[in-house]
Amino acid sequence: MSDILVVGSLAYDSIETPSGKVDRALGGSANYFSLAASLFAKVRVVGVVGEDYEEADYKLLQSRGVDLEGLEKVSGKTFHWEGKYEGDMNEAKTLRTELNVFEHFNPKLPESYKNSSFVFLANIVPALQLEVLNQVKNPQFVGMDTMNLWIDIANADLLKVMKKVDVVLINETEAEMLTGAGNAIEAAAKIVELGPKAVVIKRGEYGFIMFSKEEGYFVLPAFPISKVTDPTGAGDTFAGGFFGYLASRPGKPTVKDMKQACIHGSILASHTIQDFSVKALAKTTLADLEKRLAEYKKVITV
Amino acid sequence: MSDILVVGSLAYDSIETPSGKVDRALGGSANYFSLAASLFAKVRVVGVVGEDYEEADYKLLQSRGVDLEGLEKVSGKTFHWEGKYEGDMNEAKTLRTELNVFEHFNPKLPESYKNSSFVFLANIVPALQLEVLNQVKNPQFVGMDTMNLWIDIANADLLKVMKKVDVVLINETEAEMLTGAGNAIEAAAKIVELGPKAVVIKRGEYGFIMFSKEEGYFVLPAFPISKVTDPTGAGDTFAGGFFGYLASRPGKPTVKDMKQACIHGSILASHTIQDFSVKALAKTTLADLEKRLAEYKKVITV
Repeated sequence: MSDILVVGSLAYDSIETPSGKVDRALGGSANYFSLAASLFAKVRVVGVVGEDYEEADYKLLQSRGVDLEGLEKVSGKTFHWEGKYEGDMNEAKTLRTELNVFEHFNPKLPESYKNSSFVFLANIVPALQLEVLNQVKNPQFVGMDTMNLWIDIANADLLKVMKKVDVVLINETEAEMLTGAGNAIEAAAKIVELGPKAVVIKRGEYGFIMFSKEEGYFVLPAFPISKVTDPTGAGDTFAGGFFGYLASRPGKPTVKDMKQACIHGSILASHTIQDFSVKALAKTTLADLEKRLAEYKKVITV
Repeated sequence: MSDILVVGSLAYDSIETPSGKVDRALGGSANYFSLAASLFAKVRVVGVVGEDYEEADYKLLQSRGVDLEGLEKVSGKTFHWEGKYEGDMNEAKTLRTELNVFEHFNPKLPESYKNSSFVFLANIVPALQLEVLNQVKNPQFVGMDTMNLWIDIANADLLKVMKKVDVVLINETEAEMLTGAGNAIEAAAKIVELGPKAVVIKRGEYGFIMFSKEEGYFVLPAFPISKVTDPTGAGDTFAGGFFGYLASRPGKPTVKDMKQACIHGSILASHTIQDFSVKALAKTTLADLEKRLAEYKKVITV
């Protein structure tokens, strides 16, 4: 079992969906990722929070054995995101983003993190993704996510990061935006031309596409969920399940491992969306995951 | 091998997509359906065309052994649809619909059609779907499609037809519209409460959902196609492949047969979208289908 380093946001989210609303609930890519990945492996977090970050929210990750040495607390308020889903549950409408302490975030890795085998660069400004990656001595397997904003305003840096990673995990809309492709199938092939060995395109309720140089396309649907309460964090949960699964396997990940990793990430994400914030994910056990994996197999098999 | 009766439109379509445009090219649900289904079984067409319907377009179906005794030619012009795809290739924007001879279509079955085992009621006004179905003596397996217009203006008739069929094949957006469901997973379960034993929801580039009373969900992605030239007719091709496969199997269709039928329909549809109008579909052979089925299996298997 290898250690996974994740850099990303720890946030308080105010979210409205057709199912209801929550105010300042726990969120952020590093939280979703860590809760998912820690089901399989040891996770180390690099991030920043403000003085308002609650003790219970540290404890949640600590109870999962997550290493928080790289989590800084600085004066000011924690990153706050406010969003709304209506109609299309695959895409949130951002109502407000308050960067707060995240604005001057300058990630520094504790010595003990520098030997991490697995590194996930969640969606933060590409220059910081690079800075984190450069501090890790000899990573075995590196992944990244990104978003429309960086594709737009930090494209050159983003392309630099993409050349240094093994896998890119990205949303469908952003994959098309990044490549100018007319659909996700075309986008997947184009992203792999930019450097990574593989790409995973997250399609929300429709599942995912993986494309690898070695074996081409691997495409599967999402587990069928008839009531989606809150899709926030589904992508980061996917990434956490993906990395957690890989880190729990012996040796350097193969394409076959990555296919299984996609399925594990996707199934964990199907739990996340069944309640607001991290509520459902925090309760999900490996036994729940195994049970749904067995149900999923029936859903996709003749 | 059983006979399949299809009632639907025979049309000339003017279509514009990001790949180009065609003017008055062969289209209509009955044409796509028959070309697909005739790869597997004997097809009988009920429909109407105008004086402008070209000899070559009759011959195309006849060359596939399709029975055209139930295809009326009347004075006036053939049904004409004009549509455009931009951005979202899953949904056409209708620019113009000229019903022409279709406006007074009153389907009458030739005697020789009345013993048909399989019946597909493609998307026409529900009252006519009922009229056709009532003329078949003892159908073994009946399916139907529909569209937003009938959900809107002929809902009561539509619900009557739904009670009489084994399977409903319907687009994702229309499935949600019909049931008021927030997503296709919920819609599928609700449609089956309306009468049919099973429903197949067509999700365009995302594949399909089948839901049956007997076995619940069966969900798979579409075959990955990086350049979609013209999505017109993909749904009717799906239905044709679905019915063709079932009619080629012994006995009354089981849920397992229907799952295989979905895969065959979906793969045939992936051919249709690779060229304008029926061009790609008309050239597709059973060998092409088998080849792509084998590739598809790799795409969806770890």
